[in-house]
Amino acid sequence: VTGGALMTAEIAEQPEVLARLLSTAGPAVESVASVIRAAAPRFVLFAARGTSDHAALYGKYLAEVRLGWAAGLASPSSMTAYGARPDLRDVLFVAVSQSGASPDLVESTTTARECGALTLAVTNNSSSALAVAAQLHLDVLAGPERAVAATKTYTAELMTLWMLVDALCDGDFSGAGAVPTAMAACVTSPSLAEVAEAASRYVDADRIVLTARGYSYATVAEAALKLMETSYLAAQSFSGADLLHGPMAMVSAGTPVIAVVSGGPGGLAMEPVLVRLEELGADVFVVGGLAAVARAGKGFILPGGVSEELAPLLEIVPLQRLACALAIARGLDPDAPRGLSKVTHTL
Amino acid sequence: VTGGALMTAEIAEQPEVLARLLSTAGPAVESVASVIRAAAPRFVLFAARGTSDHAALYGKYLAEVRLGWAAGLASPSSMTAYGARPDLRDVLFVAVSQSGASPDLVESTTTARECGALTLAVTNNSSSALAVAAQLHLDVLAGPERAVAATKTYTAELMTLWMLVDALCDGDFSGAGAVPTAMAACVTSPSLAEVAEAASRYVDADRIVLTARGYSYATVAEAALKLMETSYLAAQSFSGADLLHGPMAMVSAGTPVIAVVSGGPGGLAMEPVLVRLEELGADVFVVGGLAAVARAGKGFILPGGVSEELAPLLEIVPLQRLACALAIARGLDPDAPRGLSKVTHTL
Repeated sequence: VTGGALMTAEIAEQPEVLARLLSTAGPAVESVASVIRAAAPRFVLFAARGTSDHAALYGKYLAEVRLGWAAGLASPSSMTAYGARPDLRDVLFVAVSQSGASPDLVESTTTARECGALTLAVTNNSSSALAVAAQLHLDVLAGPERAVAATKTYTAELMTLWMLVDALCDGDFSGAGAVPTAMAACVTSPSLAEVAEAASRYVDADRIVLTARGYSYATVAEAALKLMETSYLAAQSFSGADLLHGPMAMVSAGTPVIAVVSGGPGGLAMEPVLVRLEELGADVFVVGGLAAVARAGKGFILPGGVSEELAPLLEIVPLQRLACALAIARGLDPDAPRGLSKVTHTL
Repeated sequence: VTGGALMTAEIAEQPEVLARLLSTAGPAVESVASVIRAAAPRFVLFAARGTSDHAALYGKYLAEVRLGWAAGLASPSSMTAYGARPDLRDVLFVAVSQSGASPDLVESTTTARECGALTLAVTNNSSSALAVAAQLHLDVLAGPERAVAATKTYTAELMTLWMLVDALCDGDFSGAGAVPTAMAACVTSPSLAEVAEAASRYVDADRIVLTARGYSYATVAEAALKLMETSYLAAQSFSGADLLHGPMAMVSAGTPVIAVVSGGPGGLAMEPVLVRLEELGADVFVVGGLAAVARAGKGFILPGGVSEELAPLLEIVPLQRLACALAIARGLDPDAPRGLSKVTHTL
């Protein structure tokens, strides 16, 4: 029993991991980008599971908005269970996986390659089966991840995908220069006591709704998974738009909601969602800028100086800390989620 | 207060809606298919919200498996909030919406068309803004839907998408000939008493997990939405593979789970998920064939004679009935979900 020491240490390691990526991964990313540029794909399909699927969701928004590519999340079972052999010429197929070991991702990447896609694996293990199966590989350089609940590999995947997209846009990664320092601030602020106080709000909660739009949608999906894994509550994440289309019926006075409100178009698009939540009297906790947090009366304030498209790298940190603290407050060990192992083998 | 009369009537209307589609929509579907065939798209993007998003998810599997097309679900906010202008040549952009009125779908369809996509609207209103915005339109012919919780428009959307894919595969729709009769059986079997008995299992439940793989994944996503809308419980749907990647930690002895186990590769791929749920002692209720239900000891048995790819049309019916019955058992009116209106306007 490690009582969250592993998860806590890996959360704290994230600024260092991102700084390392920014300072050392550039040449590898540029090299992969040049192969992709030469292949001139017009569509990108991401394949991933669990935490890495949320990094893929972030990558999908980046590809759509910054690259102007049509993008989708692949359903691995189409190929692995149903034997689909799609025409994937002009498709970049990006498989994202911490371990690089999940059989369905290895198989679907192999199939995608046979079907004409240019395949790229993004993993934390350069000798993994997935890294070998794909033509291209990017190592997220997070170092061994020991906690079952992934934290540093998630943000390392986000940064790797961001760097790849930046390279494809002829960027020099300087846009992310402020991220490691800003993330270091997120590791210590809110304070431990403030995180524990926030966790105490949910110590008896059986369910919680998380919502955001745009880039930050990936944040709430990942935060919900952390809360499910470590604290076993029914955490549901919705795009703000989807929340209005039906699930809002679940929300009434006092329903716990965490809204991530970024400082850009995604945050602006949350306005009607926040208004509706206020009308319903939901118990809304905001992760975002000072104004958004002040309006809700409670939340975690994020440091400024980072663009909206990079905000998900920061937003998740206090929510990882919240998940860890909530598990401890509930008498659970966040390092030993019930019935999970670090590598999940799905076919 | 209608006490579920609207929803009940529309659930019961579904076999007639599907029979009408099969007998009358063929020429319109063939005509749309011939335009699509001439354009020869290689990628399909679906855009939808809420219930229609689950029809889109079904369409995505169909496109991948039967057409061999790369497919994705569009994030409308990329275009509407972030102003993305992706290169959509060779892309078929399919917007699915009961009302055809949601501004974000109209705007993203207009943008997709400007960006080079061939656009198709699938709606229940041929004079809607969405039907007008797209180059092609298919009317799902469900007739006016009055209940806020969509039922007949969902299965009509599924059938319309299936017919389109069948036409693109040079089919004559005969593969779905058995569906209306089989669906009529699902309207009366399980009996009202059996549905009420199943609902009584969940009358005090605050949360429930739903899971399936492959084509049936759309079923559990839609069933979860019905349960959220009508009965306000935290219903979470997961692909069986994703459930194993983390959320399974939430499941312990007695946790209510509904597993949809179809009779094909998707159902087979559920095997490790069912084994894990059994090990954990979860309270598993199965919707599927006789053997799968017998193994769990409880569930709703679906009629045979319909292929796995059409099974989602049947599977959802007892789950719609369950959602309606559960709302009533909880003293709620399934026709008047708290705080929802029939048409949701998201930007």
